[in-house]
Amino acid sequence: MELVQQLTEALGAECVLSHAEAAQRIASNWVGAENLNCRALLLPRNTAEVSTALKICHAAKQPVVPHGGLTNVVGGVLTQGHEIALSLERMNAIEAVDEANRTATVQAGVVLQELQNQLQPRGLFFPLDLGAKGSCMIGGNISTNAGGLQALRYGVMRNLVLGLEVVLADGTIITSMNQLLKNNAGYDLKHLFIGSEGTLGVITRAVLKLEDVPLSKNTAYIALNSFAQACDFLSFAKKTLGHTLSTYELMWQDYYQLMTSLPSRYAPPLPQDHAYYVLLEAQGYHPENDQKLFQETLERAFESGLIADACLAQSQQELDWFWGIREQVDFIFSVHQPVFLFDVSLSISNMETYTQEIAKGLQKVWPDVFLYVFGHMGDGNLHLFVSCGQNDQATRHQVEEIVFNPLTAIGGSITAEHGVGLEKKAWLHLSRNPAEIALMKSLKAALDPAGILNPGKIF
Amino acid sequence: MELVQQLTEALGAECVLSHAEAAQRIASNWVGAENLNCRALLLPRNTAEVSTALKICHAAKQPVVPHGGLTNVVGGVLTQGHEIALSLERMNAIEAVDEANRTATVQAGVVLQELQNQLQPRGLFFPLDLGAKGSCMIGGNISTNAGGLQALRYGVMRNLVLGLEVVLADGTIITSMNQLLKNNAGYDLKHLFIGSEGTLGVITRAVLKLEDVPLSKNTAYIALNSFAQACDFLSFAKKTLGHTLSTYELMWQDYYQLMTSLPSRYAPPLPQDHAYYVLLEAQGYHPENDQKLFQETLERAFESGLIADACLAQSQQELDWFWGIREQVDFIFSVHQPVFLFDVSLSISNMETYTQEIAKGLQKVWPDVFLYVFGHMGDGNLHLFVSCGQNDQATRHQVEEIVFNPLTAIGGSITAEHGVGLEKKAWLHLSRNPAEIALMKSLKAALDPAGILNPGKIF
Repeated sequence: MELVQQLTEALGAECVLSHAEAAQRIASNWVGAENLNCRALLLPRNTAEVSTALKICHAAKQPVVPHGGLTNVVGGVLTQGHEIALSLERMNAIEAVDEANRTATVQAGVVLQELQNQLQPRGLFFPLDLGAKGSCMIGGNISTNAGGLQALRYGVMRNLVLGLEVVLADGTIITSMNQLLKNNAGYDLKHLFIGSEGTLGVITRAVLKLEDVPLSKNTAYIALNSFAQACDFLSFAKKTLGHTLSTYELMWQDYYQLMTSLPSRYAPPLPQDHAYYVLLEAQGYHPENDQKLFQETLERAFESGLIADACLAQSQQELDWFWGIREQVDFIFSVHQPVFLFDVSLSISNMETYTQEIAKGLQKVWPDVFLYVFGHMGDGNLHLFVSCGQNDQATRHQVEEIVFNPLTAIGGSITAEHGVGLEKKAWLHLSRNPAEIALMKSLKAALDPAGILNPGKIF
Repeated sequence: MELVQQLTEALGAECVLSHAEAAQRIASNWVGAENLNCRALLLPRNTAEVSTALKICHAAKQPVVPHGGLTNVVGGVLTQGHEIALSLERMNAIEAVDEANRTATVQAGVVLQELQNQLQPRGLFFPLDLGAKGSCMIGGNISTNAGGLQALRYGVMRNLVLGLEVVLADGTIITSMNQLLKNNAGYDLKHLFIGSEGTLGVITRAVLKLEDVPLSKNTAYIALNSFAQACDFLSFAKKTLGHTLSTYELMWQDYYQLMTSLPSRYAPPLPQDHAYYVLLEAQGYHPENDQKLFQETLERAFESGLIADACLAQSQQELDWFWGIREQVDFIFSVHQPVFLFDVSLSISNMETYTQEIAKGLQKVWPDVFLYVFGHMGDGNLHLFVSCGQNDQATRHQVEEIVFNPLTAIGGSITAEHGVGLEKKAWLHLSRNPAEIALMKSLKAALDPAGILNPGKIF
């Protein structure tokens, strides 16, 4: 029997979209996405159906690409015409919220924003926050080990997952739905699947750690005259604000100017003539004290010359405005096309010289290049948007060379949070040595000997 | 050539102790340890020598048991006469401390306390803290994913390791000494080796995350009249003290009475007639504020009836006294022999009924049984010391049955932080299902196909 027909008989017609039906959908939620091109699109309703589908595909050595919210920016969800896409979108139930133990049990297809919405009225929250929250799904967040805007305080996705259910390439279901904070009973299997980009198994369910909804939120823009100030103020803010410090987003002047000048809809909260800007946020449980501490922190920093200027958000409207400047990065794509996006990781102590070197390197080849830099400074994670007017493969490669090559010498990484996918696999050797890559391949061979899961991604 | 001779020629005689020489040493730092019984004891001085040794042992299918500080309490380091012990004790260099990026690069044989001593004058600290700190080594802390007394605030060892160097069973060196907080360049290999008890590779070096030395420490004993109070006060303390809360150690009355009555050297800081006691500690960077907040927290808790009594440590001497009551658990062994030690993990909401059930079950068989319970309540981790006057295998098994069996129904774990080793492997199936154990075995087969690394441990 033909494979798609076999899948249709096993799962039911409503769970299998043909090549032509799937082609009505887009291949990715990312800028410039084409239509989905795959042999079939599977829409299983539960773990057993995921297992059935994988068993059939495994027997036929049929490549399968797991799909979540399709917000991946490194080509991690892209399919070729002979590959089957397996979307978890129908597995979108929040199965349980345990208020006493601060855990949520969810299916992989739950949209991050939807989880946050459901938790809010119970006074709980899941602390992953990223620009794509309205579309991205928990399964994708886990398989890419998402980072985002509050990792400084709460850690990355790996730190927020307690248990997982995963279906292996051959259909074996591994239900490892640990609810405990500490559990050393044998190997901690979940870490294999977190961040392995769907190449070792398909995540179907998870147990997530929750927090109480913070009762206070204090947010400010800070202007700084030098990178040294950005470093010193980060140290100061960490010590002063302690664990309430949840966001320290650094923006280079070019980025801030672009996002706060027409045709952007945002006005500048602070004058545009400073070298760096920080979006600072602290969250806590003692509204009165927290606000006092936040204001005192800024006053003391200003008085001691640690910062050049500051401006506090005084209303929800101002909060949206402040965050919009940092989050609405799509605006760059409306001003510049094409744009190459990077997500590098490096020590804070290397950030200034690294970005200067990149800028010089790019300007040497493209004197009119646009380079916008911002990122999660506290995590050592910068995003770079590069637009040099060209979009061909050779140009892309040349830009990548300039951005990635200096990372090896400083122990940096070609990806802090976006992952490798298709786009960065040619550069993996800059951040991982041959022995590490060989061990990754051994694991891949052990868990997916037929190589059917998201083939060609990562390595 | 005979294997030990081959190792001696490859490593030099000073790195290979014979069976007889090794037998001068003890097999474990734990109570009642016998002398070391092994085919030979290897003492490599660097990673290359570890690799050489494993290459030779791998070719000969020679079992190897990695040794660190020998403080393991579940038989994880025990050897049989035909096995070779490989001690990392000579690899005890602190290779680098990066003050700007808050990392330390250390060899596996560094003693935890020694690392803390070296960091202190630089204003830095490594936040793992456990009773065995004077002997336990970083490599062992990593391979067992140690927890300890401050996991509530800083997380377990897994959260404190950035990078690792590991030698695989066949001698392959995997140098994955990541220094970055975020790095999604391929699989995060370190998690395979953290907590796998030396069965997948020998850890030789690590990059550790450091913190600034806290500038304030506030410590108190709290008396509570019910378990419900212990829960409510924990929630209250978490919200009030926020991230400064570093320790919340709960002690049942029996334990507290034992540790604060003659022949114990400790007097009771609070009267002995309360149902529960908590050793509470908070650490921060604002001495004046932190002390005020700590005192206010206790005052408000007392006034609102959340706690029955409280007593603050006012000097280093009192601090040592307070901590001694919690840490000097060896005292139990001087009063009772034999003692069976347990380390279970469970939701806080199940703790009271679980311990009552255990007590009842034990008393039914041994009416005069001693049961001492205390633990890291905030982490969901309890330690139970059981002494029923007998020490034979059948008794041990019966006690284990009573302690472990109820865990399955409540999703608990047979080990929160001690690991499985030899002692708990018969019970692994209570906390892990057959699919999970099968996957663990697949990983073992993939990484150590000859099964030479710490054979017979975990499963």
